[in-house]
Amino acid sequence: MAVKIGLVGTGTVGGGCIDILQKHREGFIKQLGVDAQLVRVCSLDSAEAEAHGVGHLFTNDYHDIINDPDIDIVIELIGGTSIAKNVVLEALAAGKNVVTANKALMATYWEEVMAAADASGKDLMFGASVGGGIPIIGPLRHSLIANQIDSVVGIVNGTTNYMLTKMAEEDMSYEEALAEAQAKGFAEANPSADVDGYDSAAKVAILASIAFDSLVTIEDVYTKGITDVTTTDLEAADDMGYVVKLLAIAHRTDTGIDVRVHPTMIPKDHQLASVNGVFNAIYCVGDFVGETMFFGEGAGAGAAASAVMGDVLDIAERLEQGVQPKESHLCTDKLPIRKIETLSMKYYIRFSVADQPGVLAKMAGAFAEHDVSIFSTMQRGGKQDGHVDVVYVTHVALESDVRAAIDQIRGMDGLLFGDPSVIRVEE
Amino acid sequence: MAVKIGLVGTGTVGGGCIDILQKHREGFIKQLGVDAQLVRVCSLDSAEAEAHGVGHLFTNDYHDIINDPDIDIVIELIGGTSIAKNVVLEALAAGKNVVTANKALMATYWEEVMAAADASGKDLMFGASVGGGIPIIGPLRHSLIANQIDSVVGIVNGTTNYMLTKMAEEDMSYEEALAEAQAKGFAEANPSADVDGYDSAAKVAILASIAFDSLVTIEDVYTKGITDVTTTDLEAADDMGYVVKLLAIAHRTDTGIDVRVHPTMIPKDHQLASVNGVFNAIYCVGDFVGETMFFGEGAGAGAAASAVMGDVLDIAERLEQGVQPKESHLCTDKLPIRKIETLSMKYYIRFSVADQPGVLAKMAGAFAEHDVSIFSTMQRGGKQDGHVDVVYVTHVALESDVRAAIDQIRGMDGLLFGDPSVIRVEE
Repeated sequence: MAVKIGLVGTGTVGGGCIDILQKHREGFIKQLGVDAQLVRVCSLDSAEAEAHGVGHLFTNDYHDIINDPDIDIVIELIGGTSIAKNVVLEALAAGKNVVTANKALMATYWEEVMAAADASGKDLMFGASVGGGIPIIGPLRHSLIANQIDSVVGIVNGTTNYMLTKMAEEDMSYEEALAEAQAKGFAEANPSADVDGYDSAAKVAILASIAFDSLVTIEDVYTKGITDVTTTDLEAADDMGYVVKLLAIAHRTDTGIDVRVHPTMIPKDHQLASVNGVFNAIYCVGDFVGETMFFGEGAGAGAAASAVMGDVLDIAERLEQGVQPKESHLCTDKLPIRKIETLSMKYYIRFSVADQPGVLAKMAGAFAEHDVSIFSTMQRGGKQDGHVDVVYVTHVALESDVRAAIDQIRGMDGLLFGDPSVIRVEE
Repeated sequence: MAVKIGLVGTGTVGGGCIDILQKHREGFIKQLGVDAQLVRVCSLDSAEAEAHGVGHLFTNDYHDIINDPDIDIVIELIGGTSIAKNVVLEALAAGKNVVTANKALMATYWEEVMAAADASGKDLMFGASVGGGIPIIGPLRHSLIANQIDSVVGIVNGTTNYMLTKMAEEDMSYEEALAEAQAKGFAEANPSADVDGYDSAAKVAILASIAFDSLVTIEDVYTKGITDVTTTDLEAADDMGYVVKLLAIAHRTDTGIDVRVHPTMIPKDHQLASVNGVFNAIYCVGDFVGETMFFGEGAGAGAAASAVMGDVLDIAERLEQGVQPKESHLCTDKLPIRKIETLSMKYYIRFSVADQPGVLAKMAGAFAEHDVSIFSTMQRGGKQDGHVDVVYVTHVALESDVRAAIDQIRGMDGLLFGDPSVIRVEE
């Protein structure tokens, strides 16, 4: 059976999709009985389409795809939440199935696009929006569906993982690591989406929505990036038996969903600790399956295109069987989102303090006053310009108490130099 | 929609399935619109059914399930290839969908049972036959389907991985590690299926059949277990920067499928090297997705039951949509299987040799005569009863040449004490 595909967006991932369709078309016919035909590609100019040998399919108006009655599946790969959203909604309204890799769109407008898919009776698949080529959405919705998923914790941004790996292993500064990531094409000229954690936040919102069957949007996610992480912190972590990763964390708790993105210290023997460079990994815990982990390339043309085309072929097989999707992905649960202030965990806090008598006593007093119990205190490095670094690791403490203690210390006259560095600890 | 399930086999995994159906029935109705009802359970005696609170569903005759026209899905969990095969074939013939965790059945009678499924137009799913709870069959058939898979390499037997971990980390002998695995319930009284590699061989046959879409049966798999692995070998590996794992290996090559199970030295920084204890992991390489790895509990009631019930719910959702499977899993490719003798790789070989002048020269001569180039030679440990251990690591060499060289050394009068230890090396 022939399945006709229109592609909107011919950048890196789109180019990978064109390559897959060209290289494996015969294989798909043989193995799946599906003749996946690319019939139209759209982008701003035709250079990319020509570079991949499909210049003859080019249009610069996506309506040529939406309005083509022969097209069964529209692939949206332009990114962002404005035109991309129109493409997705118009394609669904026109009775097309849609495959997207657009995490920002899904994490922001989940309800709206899912409702549109539901109304159209068509499929909206988004496996490539999280984890690049790592199969995670599919397994959560199928192989692991018999479980109540209690935790999803992942390294879902390759850029920041590359930077943290370089900082830890080669003692690079944040700025050096960023420059190298940019030089290698892993980071954008404006790196904010990666280094400020927004990319990870969108992905964990999608993961949590699927894993817990309860809507989580990007606005629900407490988000802190890696811009304040220093090599001093990474060395301190190393000495204590930890590594620092930008983790995307979602836990189901008795009082709601705990969902957040922040630099996190994890023990060196944790499965996620050895995931380095641009690789991604997602760790799940289910009530029957126990611990599972999915590892692979989180970005790059091939990996993301593999995920997009996996979705396209799934839809193509259903089309061949004459089946429409029954699952509208409208989350059936309405679990509350827990505020970060209500969570309890361990904290690593580094202060640059004046090297004067009585400083430690004052700080200890502030922690005690706010019920934050200290596990260890340690001076790191020597004295510089009259101040020294002091590292605290707390026992499990309430986030709001830790913040109050830090605020109190911040208010102490002439005591602190610069902002304290706070890294949460997961065991 | 109500979907009625009959369970044949109420051991560990069957008990887990009963538990899932009881604990999550309401959740499945809410999330999937499927009311998965267990209506009959069969085993030799009713004690296990009673222990899981379903004594009223008990029968000791599986025909009561096959012949019940209301039952939609039969779960086969009795194992083995005799009665289990009858259950599967009779259930398919009676128009039931079948879910099995039976690796031996699938790896031995793939063509016969798939043909039966094809003829009946019903589903035969077997996700739990490989990797326990780790989703791997599903991802290979869906999320990764756009790739040509070139390699699948896994640690797929928890028992032997537990033993090798204990031997490496706690300096236990093979016998001590086996005794501990048996005491903990990880190894059977007769451990042959695990320690001789047959369990891994069945699993890699299934993985290769799916990954390469080309039939591989257990008889195609070169299989060597861990019974000859000694702590001396593990220590030598450690000193050289390697660990020893029982790997299940399947590579697509230009001249056919290379598929085998044997103890293997892998570098310590390989993703599989840190998979310890009873955990399993499966590493795949696809032409677009690149490297991916799937990690989790390879055995245990919960993990395997999670995989079984994932398949059951997939079928239930299709039943709800009124769709029958189109995919009969009849492999469309007919790739040849490569004989182990035709493969080239690196080898670690340890000989116990007489401590006499000229011994090393004789051995070097034998290797040279058979075109086996040596990367390093090293004496391990001291002299014992007139003999010493000598370890060779070869450059890439042809298996048949290595065997011929070893045979020649074996034939040298009074030179060797006992059998040499041969461990293949993968980079």
